[in-house]
Amino acid sequence: MYAEIISIGTELLMGEIVDTNAAYLAARLPGLGIELRWVSQVGDDMDKLSEVIQRALSRSDLTLTTGGLGPTSDDLTRECIARVLREEIRVDDRLLEDIKTYFRGRGGAMSSYNIKQAAIIPSAQAIINPRGTAPGWWVEKAGHTIVAMPGPPGEMERMWQDEVSPRLRHLIKGVVIVTRTLKTIGLSEAAVNEMIAPLFESTNPYLGIYARSDGIHLRAIAKAPTNAEALALIAPVEEHILRVLGPSIWGVDNETPEEQVGVLLKKRGLTLATMESFTGGLVASAITEVQGSSDYFRGTIVAYSNDLKVTFGVPAELIEKYGAVSPQVAEAMAEAACHQLRADVGVGTTGVAGPSELEKKPVGTGFIGIAYNGQTRSISGRYPPQRPLVRRRAASHALVELLQMLRGTGQP
Amino acid sequence: MYAEIISIGTELLMGEIVDTNAAYLAARLPGLGIELRWVSQVGDDMDKLSEVIQRALSRSDLTLTTGGLGPTSDDLTRECIARVLREEIRVDDRLLEDIKTYFRGRGGAMSSYNIKQAAIIPSAQAIINPRGTAPGWWVEKAGHTIVAMPGPPGEMERMWQDEVSPRLRHLIKGVVIVTRTLKTIGLSEAAVNEMIAPLFESTNPYLGIYARSDGIHLRAIAKAPTNAEALALIAPVEEHILRVLGPSIWGVDNETPEEQVGVLLKKRGLTLATMESFTGGLVASAITEVQGSSDYFRGTIVAYSNDLKVTFGVPAELIEKYGAVSPQVAEAMAEAACHQLRADVGVGTTGVAGPSELEKKPVGTGFIGIAYNGQTRSISGRYPPQRPLVRRRAASHALVELLQMLRGTGQP
Repeated sequence: MYAEIISIGTELLMGEIVDTNAAYLAARLPGLGIELRWVSQVGDDMDKLSEVIQRALSRSDLTLTTGGLGPTSDDLTRECIARVLREEIRVDDRLLEDIKTYFRGRGGAMSSYNIKQAAIIPSAQAIINPRGTAPGWWVEKAGHTIVAMPGPPGEMERMWQDEVSPRLRHLIKGVVIVTRTLKTIGLSEAAVNEMIAPLFESTNPYLGIYARSDGIHLRAIAKAPTNAEALALIAPVEEHILRVLGPSIWGVDNETPEEQVGVLLKKRGLTLATMESFTGGLVASAITEVQGSSDYFRGTIVAYSNDLKVTFGVPAELIEKYGAVSPQVAEAMAEAACHQLRADVGVGTTGVAGPSELEKKPVGTGFIGIAYNGQTRSISGRYPPQRPLVRRRAASHALVELLQMLRGTGQP
Repeated sequence: MYAEIISIGTELLMGEIVDTNAAYLAARLPGLGIELRWVSQVGDDMDKLSEVIQRALSRSDLTLTTGGLGPTSDDLTRECIARVLREEIRVDDRLLEDIKTYFRGRGGAMSSYNIKQAAIIPSAQAIINPRGTAPGWWVEKAGHTIVAMPGPPGEMERMWQDEVSPRLRHLIKGVVIVTRTLKTIGLSEAAVNEMIAPLFESTNPYLGIYARSDGIHLRAIAKAPTNAEALALIAPVEEHILRVLGPSIWGVDNETPEEQVGVLLKKRGLTLATMESFTGGLVASAITEVQGSSDYFRGTIVAYSNDLKVTFGVPAELIEKYGAVSPQVAEAMAEAACHQLRADVGVGTTGVAGPSELEKKPVGTGFIGIAYNGQTRSISGRYPPQRPLVRRRAASHALVELLQMLRGTGQP
C-alpha cells in the first residue's frame, strides 16, 4: 500500500513551526507494511490544498492529512476533501452534541465557531478525538482511503494510536516491512560507508546511512510476505555490520542513550547525578525525559560560574591550574555530583559553547567526566562550533559515553 | 517571486528526522519578499526526485532544495537536476581541488566517494560550503532559479546566510513582505479568535493565529511595494490587537521569553538561578541557550528527589504538610535557588510529569515559584497530561511568568 502525507497549515510555510507530525507518522508506517512515497506541506488555501489532495488521490492508496480541522476560518481540510470528492458537507447533529459534551466536561461552553467541526460528508466516518474538539475523518471512496487528523501533535498522536493505526492494521494484508537500525559512535559517515560498502548495493534489504547527533545510524529495511521472512532477509546484513563495526555500536532501533542508561542503572540498583556547565541542564533534561527516571536519577547541579563549581565541591586549585574547561575539572565535577547529590555514578560536563572562545580554547571544545565505582575518567570532545550544536552534541556524547562505560565497552 | 522548498532524503520519509530545514528557510523568505507556496519531502529516488523538481520548475520561480549532496550513492540531487535540465554532469577540477584542500585542512584525506561532490553542470555555479565538503549549486535556466543546499542544518544555514540569502536579495525587486507577530499568554485560541474576529477577514494584512507552547501567537503579514507602506498596513491591525488584548501580550516577533528575561536581567544588573524538579533542567537549558547568559545566570539545582530538596534548603515540614507538588514548596524552591546559588531572582518548579499521578495529584499539575526583591509568589499551571508536553509547557510557562513579573505586568 502506497501512502502520502499532507501537513496542512500556513504556519508551516511561514516557518513558524516544524512539521513533526509528518516525521511521527512516517516512522510508524513501515511497521504497518505501508510504504510512504510523498510528503507535502501546504497552506490554508482552498485551491492549493484541493490540488494537493487531488494529486494524492491519483497516485497514493492512502492519504494521511494533519491540520486544518480547527474552528477558525483558516481551517479548510473538511471543505477541500468535500470539494475534491464532490460531496455535500453538512453538520451532523450527533457530532455537534459530542462537541457540546466535550466543552461541558471541561467546564466551558462551545463557541459558534466550533459548529463547523461537526460537519461531515457521506463517504466519511467521524474519528473520535479524545484530546480536542475536532473529530477526524476516515474517508473511503473508489478504492482510496483518506484519514484527516488534527494538527496539534498531542491530539493527532493520540488519535493515531487509539483509532487510526488499529484500523489501518486491518486494511493491510500481504506485505510486511521490517526495519532494523544500528547506531554507531566514533566513526565518520564516510568511514562507515567505506567499511561496509558492499551492503549498500542491496535493494532488499535496503540499507540507509544517516548522520545524527548521537553518531552514525545504519537502517536496514526489508520487505517480504511475512515478518519471519523479512527478519531472515535482515539477519545476514545485521551480522555483517556487527562483525565489521561491533565495538562502535551502542544501540539498536529506537533506543536512546538515556533510556538504555536507565535500564542498566535500574538493573544494577545504581543512582546517577550530573554536574553541568556548558550543557546547562541538557543532560539532566534528557535523562528525566525517560519515564520512571526518578527511580535512579538523583539530580543535577548546573554550576554556570566558577565560584559555584567551587562551592559545590570542585577544588579551586584545579580551576586555577588547568582552567574550568579541562579534563581535570570535568572529572572533579563528576565526583562532586556523586558527593553532593549522593549518587553512585556521576557525570560532569565542561566546555566552550560560544560564540566566543573561553580560556583561549575554541568554541566546540568539551570534556566529559564520568565517576563510577571508585574510578574517574574523562573524554574529550570536539563539536561543530555553533552554540546550539555544541550543547546538544556534547549532551548526546556524554550520554553515549556513560552508556558505553556502564556496559564495559567504553574507552579504557 | 513564488518559491518552493524540496527537502530530500529517505530518512525524512522514514520519520528518522524532522524537517527543520524547510521551517528555517520558510521563516526567512517573507523578509526577502519571496512567497513560499509549496513544500515537499521526497526520498533518495531518481524518478520521484526528478518528478518533484520537474513540477517545481513548472510552477515556481525559485526552487530551494536541501539534502542529497553528500558523497554516498543515495545522494542524487545533482544527478536529478542534471537529468531534468537535460545537461551533462562532469567533475570540475577546481572544485575537486577545493575538496582535497578541505580535507587536508581537517587533517584527513579525501575518500574516492567524495569525487562526485565536485561535479557540476553548465547552467550551475558552485556555492561555497565553509562547513562541509559538498559545494551547493546555484542554477539559472529559462527564467528559473534552483538553489541546491546541503542537508545537515549547520551546513545549510551557514550557506544560506553567507551565500544564498545575499544573492536572493539582489534578485528580488518590487515587493516587500513584512510580518509582525504578537505573542499572548493565558487565553485559548478560540477566545483570542472571538475577541478580534473582524481582523481575520482582511487579506492584506493577512492575520494568522497559531497555538504554541508559550501561548497563542498572532501573525500579521503585509505585502506592499515598500517597507514603509507594508508597515503602514500593519500598524492599525497591531493597534487594534494591543487595545483588545494588551495585558495578555508578552512578546513580539521572534522574541523568546528566555531572551527577554536576559535583556531585563542584564539591564538591571540582576542574577538568576532555578531549582527544578519535574522540568528536570528544561528551564535552565532554555535560559542557557541564550548567548551571553553567563552574564546573569548563576546555575540550577535539579532536586529530583525530596531528600535533595531538603538538603538544598526546602524546609522538610513544608513537604510533609503540603506535599512536594504544592505552591508552598514551589515558593520555597525559588527562595532556596536564590540562597544556595547566590542569585537575586529565583524560580522553582514542581509538578506531576507522569505517566502516574503523584501525591494523588493528576498528571499535568504544576506550580511555579518566583522569588524576587524580598517577595515570593507562586502560580499554578495545568498542562496537557502527557509527559513530554507537561515538562515543556511548564518550562515555557515558568519563563513567561518570570518575564511578566520582571516587567511588572504579571499576575498580582
